Amino acid sequence: MKVAIIGVTGYSGLELVRLLKNHPKVEIVSLHSHSQNNQDISNVYPHLKRIIDLTLEEINPKKIMATADLVFFATPSGISKDLAADFSENNFPMIDLSGDFRLKEIGAYEKWYQKEPASPAILSKAEYGLADLNSEYSSNFIANPGCYATCALLSLAPLVQEKWIDPDSIIIDGKSGLSGAGKNLSVAAHFEEAHDNMSLYKMNSHQHIPEIVQQLKSWDKSIPAIQFSTSLIPVSRGIFMTSYLKAKRKLTTSQVHQLYQSFYQDKPFIRVQAENQFPSIKQVVGSNYCDIGVAFNEATNVITVVSVLDNLVKGAAGQAIQNLNHLMKIPEITGLDFVPVYP
Amino acid sequence: MKVAIIGVTGYSGLELVRLLKNHPKVEIVSLHSHSQNNQDISNVYPHLKRIIDLTLEEINPKKIMATADLVFFATPSGISKDLAADFSENNFPMIDLSGDFRLKEIGAYEKWYQKEPASPAILSKAEYGLADLNSEYSSNFIANPGCYATCALLSLAPLVQEKWIDPDSIIIDGKSGLSGAGKNLSVAAHFEEAHDNMSLYKMNSHQHIPEIVQQLKSWDKSIPAIQFSTSLIPVSRGIFMTSYLKAKRKLTTSQVHQLYQSFYQDKPFIRVQAENQFPSIKQVVGSNYCDIGVAFNEATNVITVVSVLDNLVKGAAGQAIQNLNHLMKIPEITGLDFVPVYP
Amino acid sequence: MKVAIIGVTGYSGLELVRLLKNHPKVEIVSLHSHSQNNQDISNVYPHLKRIIDLTLEEINPKKIMATADLVFFATPSGISKDLAADFSENNFPMIDLSGDFRLKEIGAYEKWYQKEPASPAILSKAEYGLADLNSEYSSNFIANPGCYATCALLSLAPLVQEKWIDPDSIIIDGKSGLSGAGKNLSVAAHFEEAHDNMSLYKMNSHQHIPEIVQQLKSWDKSIPAIQFSTSLIPVSRGIFMTSYLKAKRKLTTSQVHQLYQSFYQDKPFIRVQAENQFPSIKQVVGSNYCDIGVAFNEATNVITVVSVLDNLVKGAAGQAIQNLNHLMKIPEITGLDFVPVYP
Amino acid sequence: MKVAIIGVTGYSGLELVRLLKNHPKVEIVSLHSHSQNNQDISNVYPHLKRIIDLTLEEINPKKIMATADLVFFATPSGISKDLAADFSENNFPMIDLSGDFRLKEIGAYEKWYQKEPASPAILSKAEYGLADLNSEYSSNFIANPGCYATCALLSLAPLVQEKWIDPDSIIIDGKSGLSGAGKNLSVAAHFEEAHDNMSLYKMNSHQHIPEIVQQLKSWDKSIPAIQFSTSLIPVSRGIFMTSYLKAKRKLTTSQVHQLYQSFYQDKPFIRVQAENQFPSIKQVVGSNYCDIGVAFNEATNVITVVSVLDNLVKGAAGQAIQNLNHLMKIPEITGLDFVPVYP
Repeated sequence: MKVAIIGVTGYSGLELVRLLKNHPKVEIVSLHSHSQNNQDISNVYPHLKRIIDLTLEEINPKKIMATADLVFFATPSGISKDLAADFSENNFPMIDLSGDFRLKEIGAYEKWYQKEPASPAILSKAEYGLADLNSEYSSNFIANPGCYATCALLSLAPLVQEKWIDPDSIIIDGKSGLSGAGKNLSVAAHFEEAHDNMSLYKMNSHQHIPEIVQQLKSWDKSIPAIQFSTSLIPVSRGIFMTSYLKAKRKLTTSQVHQLYQSFYQDKPFIRVQAENQFPSIKQVVGSNYCDIGVAFNEATNVITVVSVLDNLVKGAAGQAIQNLNHLMKIPEITGLDFVPVYP
Repeated sequence: MKVAIIGVTGYSGLELVRLLKNHPKVEIVSLHSHSQNNQDISNVYPHLKRIIDLTLEEINPKKIMATADLVFFATPSGISKDLAADFSENNFPMIDLSGDFRLKEIGAYEKWYQKEPASPAILSKAEYGLADLNSEYSSNFIANPGCYATCALLSLAPLVQEKWIDPDSIIIDGKSGLSGAGKNLSVAAHFEEAHDNMSLYKMNSHQHIPEIVQQLKSWDKSIPAIQFSTSLIPVSRGIFMTSYLKAKRKLTTSQVHQLYQSFYQDKPFIRVQAENQFPSIKQVVGSNYCDIGVAFNEATNVITVVSVLDNLVKGAAGQAIQNLNHLMKIPEITGLDFVPVYP
Repeated sequence: MKVAIIGVTGYSGLELVRLLKNHPKVEIVSLHSHSQNNQDISNVYPHLKRIIDLTLEEINPKKIMATADLVFFATPSGISKDLAADFSENNFPMIDLSGDFRLKEIGAYEKWYQKEPASPAILSKAEYGLADLNSEYSSNFIANPGCYATCALLSLAPLVQEKWIDPDSIIIDGKSGLSGAGKNLSVAAHFEEAHDNMSLYKMNSHQHIPEIVQQLKSWDKSIPAIQFSTSLIPVSRGIFMTSYLKAKRKLTTSQVHQLYQSFYQDKPFIRVQAENQFPSIKQVVGSNYCDIGVAFNEATNVITVVSVLDNLVKGAAGQAIQNLNHLMKIPEITGLDFVPVYP
Repeated sequence: MKVAIIGVTGYSGLELVRLLKNHPKVEIVSLHSHSQNNQDISNVYPHLKRIIDLTLEEINPKKIMATADLVFFATPSGISKDLAADFSENNFPMIDLSGDFRLKEIGAYEKWYQKEPASPAILSKAEYGLADLNSEYSSNFIANPGCYATCALLSLAPLVQEKWIDPDSIIIDGKSGLSGAGKNLSVAAHFEEAHDNMSLYKMNSHQHIPEIVQQLKSWDKSIPAIQFSTSLIPVSRGIFMTSYLKAKRKLTTSQVHQLYQSFYQDKPFIRVQAENQFPSIKQVVGSNYCDIGVAFNEATNVITVVSVLDNLVKGAAGQAIQNLNHLMKIPEITGLDFVPVYP
């Protein structure tokens, strides 16, 4: 399988390069960037020196379709919605890591992204690709989920699908490392601001809220809304998420734990922790795992779900490759079976 | 006012020294430690060289009562409950930064601290000293609040006292820097474990839970329990707390903001942020401030309260000095009116 | 003494505000900024809320001279060289924290700063103010030393003044936290680049090289040049400097230590460590101290000097206030006698 | 090739597991630990859950020799010197990551490690394995170099072998992340001490000094000694080293750069940077690369060499695997050709 990557100079694009370099069934044939054409990627990113010997090219869909079998979009929101047109016309396989094709409801993209949406015709072809819970796609155009959305959906799927919780009670407190803020300079990502600090951003307005709700509703249409917060913590990679949910009835931690164990037992990348153990970010950094721990509090009837993932792998490039494996109909762990980088 | 500090080699004790050094009405007359007697404190802590010229002494209550006017306990839990006896007998002024005298309910201390409690006679003399909401004490023996408890209580006081929220809906997601874990070596506080990482600890079992509930119940006895989580973030000083509460009726962010503004307008150390602004840890580090921002979410009926403080100052030594000022009946900002260390 | 601060929104300017707030003999009467006029400083910097109640003003020398007794320039290089003209004409007291008036040799400023220099007439009035080694100034216009230069000069002064070292052997390896890189956004100061990383910048071209050499030559004109490197380390505040010098003759660590002890015994802000002890950054953060440790290696005849300081205090605002104290002929520790913020 | 790992619960041992997991020619058959026998390694280290399904075993040389083809020692110093005896007797292949078999001179190990040395008979069988500069070993018992030593030797090899520098002028300023301090708890590695801090340790007494000198002397016996310092920087993985050397004659940066380019052109893991570019730690983290940049200063006649590596990979487990590849006579990049984890 020959692939091209558009938007390779962002962190998700770079992570695709890192992971695909060792994928046994994939060859990267071209790298594309809006801004730094004709430069060797290893000049722009010295960590790739002597490893990746490719020059950044402009984005030419015809040329890409002539040389590659699939294209990844690792672009910021608002780019692939236009770029996808040529590829879609030719029914060319695409995996989009941006948010442009995730929201199906009319008006939702405009509301949450404050941008013009993709054309309905192309949007309708894209399939939302939560890779750990889907493996058979009807489309060859995958909208890869957002990092927070992936973490939230994997955290809640068992409880929502089994309808164990009050649909009105979902509270998700998400924390992300700075790689989630991307490569672009900003005050919030300035070392002196982010280091030794923590801050909340996009109060009640993060663009992953509608993405999470859309998927939760597909599992239980009685869910009306979610309370979802996002904060920055001074780590490089990683999402740490704490979700709070009112149980419909009295439970025990053990019962909740067993639900998760059995729900995820065949999912290679979801590692439910031992009972009364909770994951930390470092145990998944650099890997495609999402690790989950659960507890039930008798005093409050609240289930707490603690989940972690590497936002650039499971939350972006790793899941995209898992989706590629699904499209190729090869084992989903292919090229993704490496050990987290600890410590 | 001459003061002695017991347990000075811990982080809270050191912070008392740092802050009292520049207090215009207080002189430190002696420093006491279980473990490092007869050493100059500046040999143990080189940052104090040429500044504090005192030798660590053993803990001799009689001698302390002969030379000082008040004693601070900056000891771990389980120490002052015994040490306080001699001082209490003589009605000698005490401010205890540990948790030994905070819980009034019989059995609570044993349950949450897994230690023998203080004697009921002495316990009954101690007054819980949430310094920003109390200024007139009937006792000269103050139980200084815990760092998380201070942050939670200041976050919730307006909503609970005004009964704007569903008493059954309180969810508090607290995050602390590593200074909160203290000076003692532990795996969780090993640099390679804590750096670039985040982890949850004491799931549903943190000892500040009963302390918070006890105080909340004094404001609204209908509150049954709270959901309270504590996680470690890789910062040195600071608590970042996100609290979620179901409003009893439809509100606006503006209404909630006005409640907080008016509730705290005369409190010098509580800085309610401008509407739709939320505090970050760095804006309070090294200072006695607790900064608070609020929002109301129409989709979920949830009020989110974001609050920050420096756990060693407002959450320990600073609040203790504020309580000292209350006992001395001098302005509460005396010796505490300095600028946070930013950046 | 009433002072105005120009360039207050940079980190050095903010640190002047923090420190002067508690200076017993100084009142800040106005704050000035090129870019954010008419805003309350506490809107721009929330850590100052309820503490500093001043509005940012444009830079009007006449008005400043009418209301203040002295002006601080906390501007980037290239600003004060022009701004100083009006003040200089009126012989108005100035302390310049930038590099514009430090280099006396013709052509040096242009070469190292790549900018037009100040006019020779004004430049000749400025006196280099290494505050710990000078206390009597003949001018009321002080060029405050650079952060690295301060650390290097205090590290080397005893050895150079006593001519114990080979003048051709000076090697200085300086490391700085990111506050030294300032408030302006840059790739090097992007969290994802700086965190968990270390990098060297300005190889053999840092603008503090000529400043250090100029001062060393004033102590020993036989010094021809220095080898001086600067690297970024992922800390907020602090310089950590390791200097290597060939001894002219066989020495012992004890002899070198005694030289430093006696050289600095009357200097309140220079703390020579106990023999065979070496300082770390944290023991000076937030304070005006420079802590120094020394060692002699018999195998190589090399003296190693380890020195630390807070670049925003001793390396900028603290030293500037010490110079202000010198100008006011009051004890140099006035307003600067606080405890470092540890941990 | 079947391998056993002794001391697997330390950071170097864990890194061997991480890297060998994806080595196409190697199978890990057993893991051994002094302290945690009979536990699943994934219980001790949750990042290995569902990946490594092995139980920690006690250290039984006979059993290891019966099931494995080679043994790695990833033990602290002072362990393998005794453990090696049984394996040595049977001429069983060993790679020792500790310092026990690196120093050949009589008395050196005792002096620098303050421990009893290995028996001379076994010591004489061990061959020092600087993997990038050696590929043909005469022994099957490799003493894997230390992390600092690897970085220093790769930094200096071209200049020393070509005799371009004054042998008496070598000054090496090494900085290491905290993974280099290991898994054992210590004050220096306590988060509150190490974070936002920098400190020098083992002044003139680091045990890698004799290892570096021994190898340098083998290249140029006129080298008498080196000045070598080691400091801790608040990063997880990585060594950043700045070396200063007096050139014997006038040079240009370009000449020095060309020497390094040609010296290392066939070495797959040594990446000489483009002229006037200098590496940072992040560009090698998680990988087996050592990246090097050089400069010549006309004012001082000093060559500066800046080098970086991941102390757990190139400085330990990666180099050990490279040595394993050498022993197996397969391409040295086998199992090591992955992309650094950036950002």
